[in-house]
Amino acid sequence: MGIAVALDRDKGRQASIEGLVKLVAADMERVNQMILSRTGSDVLMIPEVANHLISSGGKRLRPMLTLSAAALCGYQGEGHVKLAASVEFMHTATLLHDDVVDESDMRRGKPAARKVWGNEASVLVGDFLLGQAFRMMVEVGSLDALDVLSTAAAVIAEGEVMQLSVARSLATTEDEYLAVIEAKTATLFAAACEVGPILAGNNPDDRAACRAYGMNLGVAFQLIDDALDYGGTADALGKNIGDDFREGKLTLPVVLSLQRGDAADREFWRQALEEGATGDDALKRAVAMMRGNGALRETIARAESYGDAARAALDRYPAGPLKTALLDTVDFCISRAH
Amino acid sequence: MGIAVALDRDKGRQASIEGLVKLVAADMERVNQMILSRTGSDVLMIPEVANHLISSGGKRLRPMLTLSAAALCGYQGEGHVKLAASVEFMHTATLLHDDVVDESDMRRGKPAARKVWGNEASVLVGDFLLGQAFRMMVEVGSLDALDVLSTAAAVIAEGEVMQLSVARSLATTEDEYLAVIEAKTATLFAAACEVGPILAGNNPDDRAACRAYGMNLGVAFQLIDDALDYGGTADALGKNIGDDFREGKLTLPVVLSLQRGDAADREFWRQALEEGATGDDALKRAVAMMRGNGALRETIARAESYGDAARAALDRYPAGPLKTALLDTVDFCISRAH
Repeated sequence: MGIAVALDRDKGRQASIEGLVKLVAADMERVNQMILSRTGSDVLMIPEVANHLISSGGKRLRPMLTLSAAALCGYQGEGHVKLAASVEFMHTATLLHDDVVDESDMRRGKPAARKVWGNEASVLVGDFLLGQAFRMMVEVGSLDALDVLSTAAAVIAEGEVMQLSVARSLATTEDEYLAVIEAKTATLFAAACEVGPILAGNNPDDRAACRAYGMNLGVAFQLIDDALDYGGTADALGKNIGDDFREGKLTLPVVLSLQRGDAADREFWRQALEEGATGDDALKRAVAMMRGNGALRETIARAESYGDAARAALDRYPAGPLKTALLDTVDFCISRAH
Repeated sequence: MGIAVALDRDKGRQASIEGLVKLVAADMERVNQMILSRTGSDVLMIPEVANHLISSGGKRLRPMLTLSAAALCGYQGEGHVKLAASVEFMHTATLLHDDVVDESDMRRGKPAARKVWGNEASVLVGDFLLGQAFRMMVEVGSLDALDVLSTAAAVIAEGEVMQLSVARSLATTEDEYLAVIEAKTATLFAAACEVGPILAGNNPDDRAACRAYGMNLGVAFQLIDDALDYGGTADALGKNIGDDFREGKLTLPVVLSLQRGDAADREFWRQALEEGATGDDALKRAVAMMRGNGALRETIARAESYGDAARAALDRYPAGPLKTALLDTVDFCISRAH
């Protein structure tokens, strides 16, 4: 997902998740064991499909957020391990279902599970993981955590359906698009963070602060993903760009390009989104247009402002290694696009 | 789903769910209101898709079981309405995902949601309903009910994946097939019944009795469905038969026909299941074979024995209208095949 580079902007902080990874390493080892044991089933296709995706090298950012938010708020118990595993299962279930919805062929550089085992298995193993996620939450026994995570499950699905409606509509506004990504991406970041303070004593101010950190980080993360799909600010056309474009996905750089473009530009986007005119030449033109009209710069600037809000949400916590690691995580998410 | 006919076999009991419907009518009105309000969303496609299926005339047997099991065990509170609605949402989510998995064109005599709104909407609205189901359970606040229903969600998905593996394998045994339908169908009946006594005071004997009633009823229900797909014991070839056959689904009548058949019969089934030779003539031959070899009679006899076990599970309850209605429901489920 891009290489971390040091940013000088904030007194020697690193644009890296290294700090976070190190601080939660011992707990993440237990989360990984939990994930492994809860994908187990006598029905062999289940661990095969689940582990194809789970072991394919995602960063596991969301469960790390749960672990670190719990620690930041002073939690000393055991429940964070199962809740972190639940969050990762919810994320994995979403990816399995997204691949079916988007008819994707690849995921994290490997063939999508649906290409190997079929749409059926992707849908059903996703359902299995969602069921297992709720079982783990129930074992932890916090109704507030169950509330936050079950609400997240419904809102994520709602956001994905919303995306179906806006995906190919040239009339989509910035606000509509931001509502989609808050729901489909940022809500799980927010929930992953909020369950930490719930476990740690359920202080409402901690819940609000951690939720705000996660929500803003999640929006920033998605906006940077959107920009990266058109090459971010890097000069070269990377080999992983253009997925959103080829799938006809309307993202913020597209919304901004439509706003800023002339009639010919709007006709170009109409053909791309409505008629699937998304060949290599069209992609080059899209990237050139977005550089010329500032849509990529503006998308990254928006992400930076959500990043600022994420950092500000941590103001109530005193300086310390965990806080530093969470601030660095914001820088990491944003620096990917530079 | 077939017309209820009176059976003389048990002292004037009716093979009908009329009694059950009447006894829970007031509560079901509230469940239906709850269902309507919880499919609501600003994302208009969600209520459209959900209500397409929910209002398409299912019997709502599962939520009626939750309501009646709660009442049978003396429950006086309000939680049964939300849990009954949760159970119906879980069932609806399963149907939406099943249609995608089976590539079905029709459901309950209407075009399947996936044919009207696409696979994407069926997958995602199913996910939304599952999320909403868990939210309602959380609102009720019983961790034991959450445990039973979240475990059911995982086991149902596991059963469906198991069915993918056995669906076209001629080597499937009766035990393997029964394990599939216990998981994919009967587990939700069992959970729907078990949450009643959980609300009513969580007596372990009540939980075991209601669960056993639901589990055995669920297996009987599915076996009768399997027999009905080949015409049951009715003489005429009805217009709704043959769906399982055309989808290449291995069900108990097929397993029994394979066991009882000669080499030519086994070759016939190999071609049907493995090569998709499932035209009208093949269907006629399958039905004739199952009548000749007793596979349909035996499937119904098995269902009757599960029905007996369901009835026996209610022994601990004194006679009364609710008990009678639940006994009639067993007769209803089985009489559909005569």
